[in-house]
Amino acid sequence: MDDKKECLTGNCPTPIEADVGSIRLSEGSGGREMQELISQIRSKLGAESDWKNTQDDAASIDFAGKKLVFTSDSYVVTPIFFPGGNIGKIAFCGTVNDLAVMGARPLGLSLSFVLEEGFSKKDFFSIVETIGELSKKHGVPIVTGDTKVVEHGSVDKIIINTSGVGSAEIILDEPLEVGDQIIVSGGIGEHGTALLARRFELETLIETDSKPLWDEINSVRGLIRQAKDVTRGGLAAILNEIAEKNGKQFLINEEKIPIEHEVRALTEVLGIELYNLACEGRFVCIASHKNSDEVVQKLKQFNKHACVVGEVLDGKNVIVQTRFGKKVLNMPHGNIVPRIC
Amino acid sequence: MDDKKECLTGNCPTPIEADVGSIRLSEGSGGREMQELISQIRSKLGAESDWKNTQDDAASIDFAGKKLVFTSDSYVVTPIFFPGGNIGKIAFCGTVNDLAVMGARPLGLSLSFVLEEGFSKKDFFSIVETIGELSKKHGVPIVTGDTKVVEHGSVDKIIINTSGVGSAEIILDEPLEVGDQIIVSGGIGEHGTALLARRFELETLIETDSKPLWDEINSVRGLIRQAKDVTRGGLAAILNEIAEKNGKQFLINEEKIPIEHEVRALTEVLGIELYNLACEGRFVCIASHKNSDEVVQKLKQFNKHACVVGEVLDGKNVIVQTRFGKKVLNMPHGNIVPRIC
Repeated sequence: MDDKKECLTGNCPTPIEADVGSIRLSEGSGGREMQELISQIRSKLGAESDWKNTQDDAASIDFAGKKLVFTSDSYVVTPIFFPGGNIGKIAFCGTVNDLAVMGARPLGLSLSFVLEEGFSKKDFFSIVETIGELSKKHGVPIVTGDTKVVEHGSVDKIIINTSGVGSAEIILDEPLEVGDQIIVSGGIGEHGTALLARRFELETLIETDSKPLWDEINSVRGLIRQAKDVTRGGLAAILNEIAEKNGKQFLINEEKIPIEHEVRALTEVLGIELYNLACEGRFVCIASHKNSDEVVQKLKQFNKHACVVGEVLDGKNVIVQTRFGKKVLNMPHGNIVPRIC
Repeated sequence: MDDKKECLTGNCPTPIEADVGSIRLSEGSGGREMQELISQIRSKLGAESDWKNTQDDAASIDFAGKKLVFTSDSYVVTPIFFPGGNIGKIAFCGTVNDLAVMGARPLGLSLSFVLEEGFSKKDFFSIVETIGELSKKHGVPIVTGDTKVVEHGSVDKIIINTSGVGSAEIILDEPLEVGDQIIVSGGIGEHGTALLARRFELETLIETDSKPLWDEINSVRGLIRQAKDVTRGGLAAILNEIAEKNGKQFLINEEKIPIEHEVRALTEVLGIELYNLACEGRFVCIASHKNSDEVVQKLKQFNKHACVVGEVLDGKNVIVQTRFGKKVLNMPHGNIVPRIC
């Protein structure tokens, strides 16, 4: 039980004698080990093509003179129902958001299920209904899909894959400049906290932050240079990825990071590193100093906690300014929190 | 053990007291129960949209004046290695083929893995390499993807989802006419037989027929009216689907159906209904009487067994002419052969 708890709270060290011959949980957690595995996969695939952004959340290609954007994600979240949502909500929002942060208006999603024999149909259709409601509300149709059923015990209840195609409308790959402001679109860590509270059967008012982000990103169209949604690996992973990709240093002011009081309290109780906690409805974006106030004002219409949390400097790494001094915020590693999305 | 064998060979009757409250294996087998489940899913999703062919293998939409085609499939085949291929080959070919039968040249695939903690990296990378080789050989790049890892026991080794986008180049939705010829592109049932032989540890020279079909379909461009790949549910499912969709009767000459001697022998040993056996590299197409000889000649360059197996009549149902008389070939039902793709 202690082992399990340690693992769930994200304090699992990489085993001293890591088994390099088999897949480890940490290789799916959004941190350094996952980056390494994906890099190995890419080296074995790598055919030349006309596609761009193949290392981003979604790839893009010129199609009849317009830019088509394409993405895919499989969702293995547990528990499948949690405060504020279920696996269907994550599957819908996650893929819409991968398109949105590439500046693409979502045109349609696929929906593929792998179901365990014996899985409750009531639960299944409740998940399907959630997806249907989101689809109608946000005008993103489910247009194709697949349904597989495997023997009892061959999968844990349900796995969903959603893939999506979108039409790029917003340019979100401008180079960053020193002095640019780093903005977070809302309170951090609510999805991860809601999920962990449910796993530990703790009472909480916190709900998943999961939501489709296209409207928010569309509202700051032309005002931001880049955007990335905060998912597996949390702020630590996302900030490191953007900083590294752009060859810049990010200086983050820890006191400015927006966190609900209850999220902070729960992470302290559970001993979780807040920077590693996943969101499913938040993004980081970078805007020029000139535009940053306007961006924050617009984003506050969606979440009152949107704010500037840091700025872009020359150099490398992500540096966090705390009350006690500066520290380097590294790419997370180890198991972090498994099956968060 | 007897139960298991019955199930694997496709002779499992629907349980007398079917549990309507939970997901059953038969609901993923490509037959009648799967159609019913998918219909229920659709009724809960159904938002209006500009997409077409949303009930076909792949959906399509006008994008900048061209027709974009989009499809998705999850692959749960067991065993993951079998004569002539592995789950990676199926995952690549299956999605390419769903685009191809819609007349779409495949532009790019996504590749999403759900991996079991502890799964052999040697096996994993062998699967990735297979996909990489097919991708390079057939010029269909893997452009985006996702990797999730779940705890040991939460999934059976590996599940792959591939989704794909393509550009429609060939019109494959012409109405059928009485007298049209029904053509099969090669020997039937080799994939299903190879897989079952491996499950039962029977020696066989039969290998999976799994292969990408775009080149074959492209070679008969302009000569065929419709095409559909033969997958789960086998010829019985695919012929019934096409006949029903078009409001026609199909008359099939059983003696003309191309079957390798060893496939027939193994299906007889195992007591499997040949019409339900899956292929992963064969398709049925319909051509006018005038074009049918030319179609068969062209397809014979890819597989010497390509031939006309029947013709289109007024009416409904699929009728099989056997040596002993006529019989109705129904949509398959029950568990058929689970986890075949």
